[in-house]
Parts: sequence; C-alpha cells; structure tokens
Amino acid sequence: MPNESQVIARLRRRAGVGDQVVLGIGDDAAVIKTSSTADLIACCDLMVEGVHFRTEWTPPRLLGRKALAVNLSDVAAMGGVPKFALMSIALPGKYSSEFLDELFDGVFEIAHETRVSIIGGDTSSSRDSLFIDISVIGECRRNQAVTRHGALVGDRIYVSGPLGASAVGLSLLEAGFRIEDARDSTDPRLQAVSKLLSPEPRLRLGQALGESGLATAMIDISDGLSTDLWHILEESGVGARIYATQIPVADCVSVAAAAPGGDPLSLALNGGEEYELLFTVRPEDRQQLAVLSESVGATITEIGEIIVEKQLNLERNGAIEPVLARGYQHLI
Amino acid sequence: MPNESQVIARLRRRAGVGDQVVLGIGDDAAVIKTSSTADLIACCDLMVEGVHFRTEWTPPRLLGRKALAVNLSDVAAMGGVPKFALMSIALPGKYSSEFLDELFDGVFEIAHETRVSIIGGDTSSSRDSLFIDISVIGECRRNQAVTRHGALVGDRIYVSGPLGASAVGLSLLEAGFRIEDARDSTDPRLQAVSKLLSPEPRLRLGQALGESGLATAMIDISDGLSTDLWHILEESGVGARIYATQIPVADCVSVAAAAPGGDPLSLALNGGEEYELLFTVRPEDRQQLAVLSESVGATITEIGEIIVEKQLNLERNGAIEPVLARGYQHLI
Repeated sequence: MPNESQVIARLRRRAGVGDQVVLGIGDDAAVIKTSSTADLIACCDLMVEGVHFRTEWTPPRLLGRKALAVNLSDVAAMGGVPKFALMSIALPGKYSSEFLDELFDGVFEIAHETRVSIIGGDTSSSRDSLFIDISVIGECRRNQAVTRHGALVGDRIYVSGPLGASAVGLSLLEAGFRIEDARDSTDPRLQAVSKLLSPEPRLRLGQALGESGLATAMIDISDGLSTDLWHILEESGVGARIYATQIPVADCVSVAAAAPGGDPLSLALNGGEEYELLFTVRPEDRQQLAVLSESVGATITEIGEIIVEKQLNLERNGAIEPVLARGYQHLI
Repeated sequence: MPNESQVIARLRRRAGVGDQVVLGIGDDAAVIKTSSTADLIACCDLMVEGVHFRTEWTPPRLLGRKALAVNLSDVAAMGGVPKFALMSIALPGKYSSEFLDELFDGVFEIAHETRVSIIGGDTSSSRDSLFIDISVIGECRRNQAVTRHGALVGDRIYVSGPLGASAVGLSLLEAGFRIEDARDSTDPRLQAVSKLLSPEPRLRLGQALGESGLATAMIDISDGLSTDLWHILEESGVGARIYATQIPVADCVSVAAAAPGGDPLSLALNGGEEYELLFTVRPEDRQQLAVLSESVGATITEIGEIIVEKQLNLERNGAIEPVLARGYQHLI
C-alpha cells in the first residue's frame, strides 16, 4: 500500500483543475471561485463496505464511479450542475495498491465525463472495512433549486427511465451471478447488474428541469419509487394517485432469470438505487416538458398526479390500493 | 439504535440555519447563498476508530467536537471563516443511542460556538469501526486565501500556542491515564490529554491573518511542527532556520508524569495534532503582527526565518543541525 503522502501526490497529479478552482488538492483546504448569480448546492454520500457494497461482486472501478455518481444524482435532483468534489477514503490493508488505483480511475473517469473537479479529500487506513465518503458542491441559478416541497395539487408526476432493474441486479448478485458470467452485452442479467453497480445520474435532465423552472418538486430514486414519492408528498403536504399500467418497468426485470419473488410492478415500485429522477410538473407545462425531455435525450413517463388527500394510492385493475413507504434496505 | 430516518429527523431539528442557508438537512442536497466578494474554501477530514481515536479513552462529546474542530483548523489555516458543514457517520451496532446523541452534542456545540451551520450529511451502519467524515465550506475575501506556497526569503516564522502537549497526552492515554483520573483542572496530565482530545482551532487568529494580508504562507500543525514547516518550505521552494530556545514548549510537557522518551524540544518539534497555526510574515510587518495577535488574544512566538537554501536547520547550543520531516504517525 502506498502511504498517505504518496496517495495525495498521485491524486494531485490527476485531479486537474477547472476554471473556478483557484487551489486544488495539496493545501489545508481548496479554494474556489463561484458565480455571483448562482446558489451553491452541497451534499455527501457515504458508502460502507458490507452495507452499501461488497467488493467480491463490485469491480473497484465501478465502485469509484458509483461513489461519485450517487452524489451527482443528488445534485441533479436539485436541478443543479455538479462542479467540485471532496473524497475521503479509509482503506483496509487487505486491498492492493492496484485496487486503489482502479477505484480512483473510476472516480476520475466519471468526474472527467461530468466536468467535476476533485478539489480535495482525506485518506486513512482502516482496520477492517472500506469506507468512501464523497461530498459534492454544485451550482444552480439563484433561487432555482428544485426542492421536495413544491408539489401542488393537480401536478403531474413523472419518472425518468424504466425501474426495477437494480433490485433484480442485487438478487442476481446475491444468487451468485457475476458480471463476467454474462453471455454478451445484451444479456438482461448484465443490464440488471449494471444498473445497480454503475448507475448513470440524470444530470442533463435534472439541470434542464432546474433551469427551465418546469419541475415543481424533484427527488432522485435511491430508496425506491414508493418511498421517495412519499418524501415529496410529506414535504409538500399533499398526496398522489399513480397508475399501475403507467409505471415503466425495465425489460430486464421480467426476463432476468433470477428475478426475486415479487411481481415486476412491485420491483419497479419498491426497488431502490435506481438514481432516476422523480418529479412533478404543472399540467399546463406537459407539452413544454415533452420538448425539453426530448432535447436532452431523456425518457420520461407520466405515472400519476398530485391529489389533496394525504395518501399515496395505486390504481390497479380498476381498484385503488394504498401504497406504503417501503424503505429500501441496504445489503446488510 | 435509531434508524436512519430517525437520526436525520433529530439532526434536522437541531441543525438550525444561518442567514446564508436557503435549505439545510432533509432534501437531496443543501442550498446556500454565498457572497459575491468571497472565495469559497472547502476541506474534509476523516476520523477512523482505531486509527485516529479510541472510544475507550475519548468521551463521545469530545469526539464530536474534534471531528469538526480539525476541519475548522484547516479553514483557519487558509485565513478563512468556516460557514457550513456536512457530516457523514458510520456507526457500528456496539454503540448506544446515547453515545450517538453525545457525539452529535459535541458537533453541534462547537458548530454553535463557531457559527457554523450543519447543512447535511449521511449516516450508515458499520460492521465494525466508527467513521466520521466532516466536510467544511468556508469563505475568505476574494484572492485572500493564505496558501502554503507564499513564504519568501527573509520572512519570519511564527507559531501560535505552546507545543508538545498533544504528544504527551497520547503517551499518557496509552499508559492508562484517563480524563477522570485528573486530580483537578490544573493537573498537567489533564491539560496534555485535553489538548489531544479537545483541540481549539485558532479561528480568530487565522481569520485576522487572512484579512490583514500579513501571513505570506500558513498551515495548521497536524503532523508536527517539523513536518508541517517542511510542507511550507517545499511548496514555497525555500528553506528555514529555527532556534531551539525560541520554540514554545507547553508547561505540561516537562511536568506531566508520564512524559514519553524524548526531550521536551523533540516533543514540541515533532508532536502532531496540535492544531496551532504556523505561518510566515515579512520582517517589516512584525510590529503590525504584534498588534493583530494581541487584538485577537492569541499567543504567538517567532521561531526563526526563511532562508534561500532548501534546508530546515535547527540552531541549538550554538550548533546547526538539520531537521528531517518526522511524519506524524497515527495511533495504530
């Protein structure tokens, strides 16, 4: 294992700097310039070995990508643009220097793709588990951040991307399937596992929704559609009706061989770690939304509407059933 | 143990908000307004059980205080003012709900004292060790951040506070001394241990040095005077001569019963976790510095000067000896 100063020296060489970074890795703190017309967005996400991931089924490069991706998804869900990241890693001695290099490769790869500057961090040894905590600072236009509390009665509810694949991916991994077992890139099992291990944050859609002012409330789906919709409803003081036939279920959910118990709809409704965007839009803005989503190449689906009663109701086969928040459980 | 949403609900109630916090804990990310005449300062510090602390000798309240304090010290060392913090904690099941409450008490206590807003964070279970990672965002006047690379030949070198107590504190704890064993508040052993477990970041001095423009380079002493002075020298491309008789040694270093091997000077020179400020000032600014340090109630000592040869020399008993960077080793 390289020591801390060697790790920092390597990161410093790779980190590069953006226009706004006055001082990056290597001092007591980083210094950045921000735009005077922007608000700042800040969040952090902690990934703990044995709780959020297992290294026996996660290649280190994908682990690095995901550790940053889940933060980028949070910034997207505020309608903002991620700009800077701080990364703390505690690494047990059991992992090799190559493991750490590949993990950093993944972080820098997605940082480069999304034009995020790694401006600092901290490293430590760890007695047992690997911990990765990344903080991201982003920007949005002043007073344009999209919160969870702006949904209004009559708003339509939208979700990006089809859902349910991550939950299937987790079941496949638990049943012993590994990425290298995939027949080819079209193997639905690979698609399911990739959705879990290498989520793609919806940055362009989130930013476009924020800048256009079209979304009245927004959240990213990390705990599952039902739970995260409940977050919007509770914060906004409203309820919702959603339609079973309209909830987009990922193709791989029905065809992946090792799909767990529970019907595809339940997986789409309750599966976590999707990192899709769930948002509400005024009904009169539907046409404008369609143009916007097409312009950023995003697939979005209208799944229901906001109602005044503080309930979450699912309409299925002509009947209405209440949906409870099914808090997503992490691996262990 | 409370679950994650209970923990978040409790934090949210306590976090309060400052003028610049548009949105704090409870959404996908926090939203903050910044001043258009300020640069942002960002840093993070990770504390890992068994590496940076042991809970058998650290009361949880002090652990919480220190986890934030070490970040505040980094912001002070840039000449900035800390404003916002994000806190990630991974907690093993062996710790009680009371332990977590006291840890948060410590974090909020020092946040309140220093007017820092806790704007977000993440919590997780952990299989084995406790991890605390805090990121702090601060501000300084545009282009006024004090880096490590500005020291010039002829600059005088200053350090705040007397040194060496933390190293003694660590030896005392390793030898079995505990806070509750102290005779009274004047017990030098208690002073040594308190310096290690409850460091006071030099915020007023750091900010005053930053705003006055007096410090040409600055760092906080986390790895030890010798190592941290080397960081300034390397980044600035210069060397230094320091004087043994001028290095301020904490009273408790010589009187604490269980002082480890090594003379007091070595402890002051090489002991880490001091969180004092080490900085350089142009010789013509010495008088102005004296006025400034008195105005903020800081004790500072001139210990040497910057020289052109890229060496760190210690003058002791009329002889010159080279000083190597003695990288501070964490507990394990």
